[in-house]
Amino acid sequence: MHLLTVDTLEEAQNKIYAYLAKNPLKTEKVALSSAFQYILAEDIHAPFSVPHFRRSIVDGYAVNSLDTVGIGESIPCFLKILGKVEMGEENTYAINRGECVYVPTGGMIPGGADAMVMLEYTEKFSENEIACYQNVKHNQYVVEIGEDIAEKSPVLKKGTVLRPHEIGVLASLGMGEVLVYAKPKVAIISLGDEIIQAGQALTPGKIYDINTFGLYTQAVKFGFAVHSCYHIKDDRQVIYDVLKKAVHDVDIVCVSGGSSQGEKDFTANLLGEISTTGVLTHGIAVKPGKPTITAYNEDLHCLLLGLPGHPVAAMLLFELLAVEVYKKIWNVPQPVLVAAKMACNFPGADGRLTCQLVELERNENSYTAKPIFGKSGVISSLAKAQGYILVDMNSEGVKKDEQVLVHLL
Amino acid sequence: MHLLTVDTLEEAQNKIYAYLAKNPLKTEKVALSSAFQYILAEDIHAPFSVPHFRRSIVDGYAVNSLDTVGIGESIPCFLKILGKVEMGEENTYAINRGECVYVPTGGMIPGGADAMVMLEYTEKFSENEIACYQNVKHNQYVVEIGEDIAEKSPVLKKGTVLRPHEIGVLASLGMGEVLVYAKPKVAIISLGDEIIQAGQALTPGKIYDINTFGLYTQAVKFGFAVHSCYHIKDDRQVIYDVLKKAVHDVDIVCVSGGSSQGEKDFTANLLGEISTTGVLTHGIAVKPGKPTITAYNEDLHCLLLGLPGHPVAAMLLFELLAVEVYKKIWNVPQPVLVAAKMACNFPGADGRLTCQLVELERNENSYTAKPIFGKSGVISSLAKAQGYILVDMNSEGVKKDEQVLVHLL
Repeated sequence: MHLLTVDTLEEAQNKIYAYLAKNPLKTEKVALSSAFQYILAEDIHAPFSVPHFRRSIVDGYAVNSLDTVGIGESIPCFLKILGKVEMGEENTYAINRGECVYVPTGGMIPGGADAMVMLEYTEKFSENEIACYQNVKHNQYVVEIGEDIAEKSPVLKKGTVLRPHEIGVLASLGMGEVLVYAKPKVAIISLGDEIIQAGQALTPGKIYDINTFGLYTQAVKFGFAVHSCYHIKDDRQVIYDVLKKAVHDVDIVCVSGGSSQGEKDFTANLLGEISTTGVLTHGIAVKPGKPTITAYNEDLHCLLLGLPGHPVAAMLLFELLAVEVYKKIWNVPQPVLVAAKMACNFPGADGRLTCQLVELERNENSYTAKPIFGKSGVISSLAKAQGYILVDMNSEGVKKDEQVLVHLL
Repeated sequence: MHLLTVDTLEEAQNKIYAYLAKNPLKTEKVALSSAFQYILAEDIHAPFSVPHFRRSIVDGYAVNSLDTVGIGESIPCFLKILGKVEMGEENTYAINRGECVYVPTGGMIPGGADAMVMLEYTEKFSENEIACYQNVKHNQYVVEIGEDIAEKSPVLKKGTVLRPHEIGVLASLGMGEVLVYAKPKVAIISLGDEIIQAGQALTPGKIYDINTFGLYTQAVKFGFAVHSCYHIKDDRQVIYDVLKKAVHDVDIVCVSGGSSQGEKDFTANLLGEISTTGVLTHGIAVKPGKPTITAYNEDLHCLLLGLPGHPVAAMLLFELLAVEVYKKIWNVPQPVLVAAKMACNFPGADGRLTCQLVELERNENSYTAKPIFGKSGVISSLAKAQGYILVDMNSEGVKKDEQVLVHLL
């Protein structure tokens, strides 16, 4: 039997990082409306000031604020209306003391005016005169040029994940498309004579393919693009041929299944052959996930992952090895985790990083994390879990009521 | 000026709910690989036991546990090997006392065996005999039929949001496709003579269209399907014609922009005309978001939303009115929020539900929420915020260090 020299998660990640980081990062331009969840591949600076003209934030009259000094509900001042500016139009008026111009919300403030009086606090006296009952200060209800964002100032950093709000920011800067990191292309290969596909009859000894669907969706969730899925029976030549093809097509090949020791060695040998580096990691100190294999093909810039057959472990290791290393390369900030109190004592696994699925229970303004236990736990635990905690390999575990951070699934 | 009778958020939601709930819910079958983030439209019960045969969770020999009583590292027992079961095959062996069968991880346990001995604790003596050094208990390393999920037991509830883990669960049950709620179709209509599109020159008074992109992405994020986007200048007939068409095409029409009082009345009148209910809500006690309009067309089952021009408010009100009401109808559980400590005192807005954007700062195992202030705050606040808190209309606000729950953006 082959003796595994087990890597820590960090060692395994660093080996992958060292190879991935040598490659130029692939980027592409995407239309802003399609950019959701892509990662920004350029620093964005404001190409112009926002707002780029003095803007009103109320409906009313642009005035010289000095005209409103000392006035109030019972002591109005009277102002001559020079005219009205329409939305989207340049305001070419210039007012003097005692004059005003009607400006709608979002409209441009005319020259000579330094504040807005709200419509509610005015009364129209005649076609071209108002009584104004509001004392306004310099700049009141006016947004100055660049007050929101100064021209050339930094707005969004390279590595930002684009959510609706960032898309809104980019839209405000007039960007119709944006430079993002290309989604890494993934091939998913499920091995095993016991695996059958939906629609096929379930006979004793067989199980339905879980990992193809779990990994497919995990890849989509994290912004990777699934290029192809294969289900192959345990035939060395066929597996070799598929691997040889896949390594040309994609950035990451994920092989899963082959859960017996013999099959794992077999997968390791094949991945080693297909790579240029040989097997980098064979065995990783993560629970679950020990039988994980990594290798790299430098000529084709392709990461080769041999993932565990256990679906929870396969999905987790895809996240920890592929997603986390790409995020590090792209400089993506750590996502927000959910702080929760541990519902009970939870022991660490000596010498291994433990990834424990948890249920989250809300109690008014806080959460409790309850570990999901179970011998096999594969399917039923998946349906219950809302997240997972990572318990460090050198930790003695987590005590009841201790604060933990939960990664959401 | 039209006097607004302002609804609370709950009143506005309930009015929409009352109409939406009358319609039969639209469902569709989607392939499991495309089901990510859809909402399950049926309760799922296990069509068979999982596992559906007695399965080994280790590589080794299936034995009668009684044969291993009293044995250990220095006192082996000797067992006759009847044969080997291959992955995916039915195990037709039946063992007696003193006999064993080789079974790989995931393989089927033969009749007569009630436990597995791990390969590491055995030594092969001859072609058909092993020495076994492991004392195993009844059922050790064996998953019984239905031990994970019993046949016919409930697995996933209607209303579940499908993440990678649920997709894995459905795959394990042999489901190639799944019944989900059809994505509500959305039309986004941006009004305003001041709005220009990317590529157009930015002249004084004009601003780039933010809401189309913000709402588009917000809709996609929450699992709605954007059917069409229109940008229309302020021409009553054109707006009427577009509305009249959109109401036939989609489930939700979102009109945004028209931020001045006159334009808002204009939008309200048009939405009222296009609806069968007349305007349901005109003005809502949410900060920001007051100038929000709702109406409903009962013949075409179409929700009409007049959203504020302010991008933060438009995106928020889309979430609070369209997304939240649909979630209630679909019975989707509340998402996990992020518990955090408030960084400073924050006053509530008297008589209005306040939605306050916050930055989250991590300190080891907990988070602090820092409100993002600013006069206009539109663009720069969007780029900084990671979430928002809701401060109840009757609350006096939140005190420094008080625990709050943050909705992630």
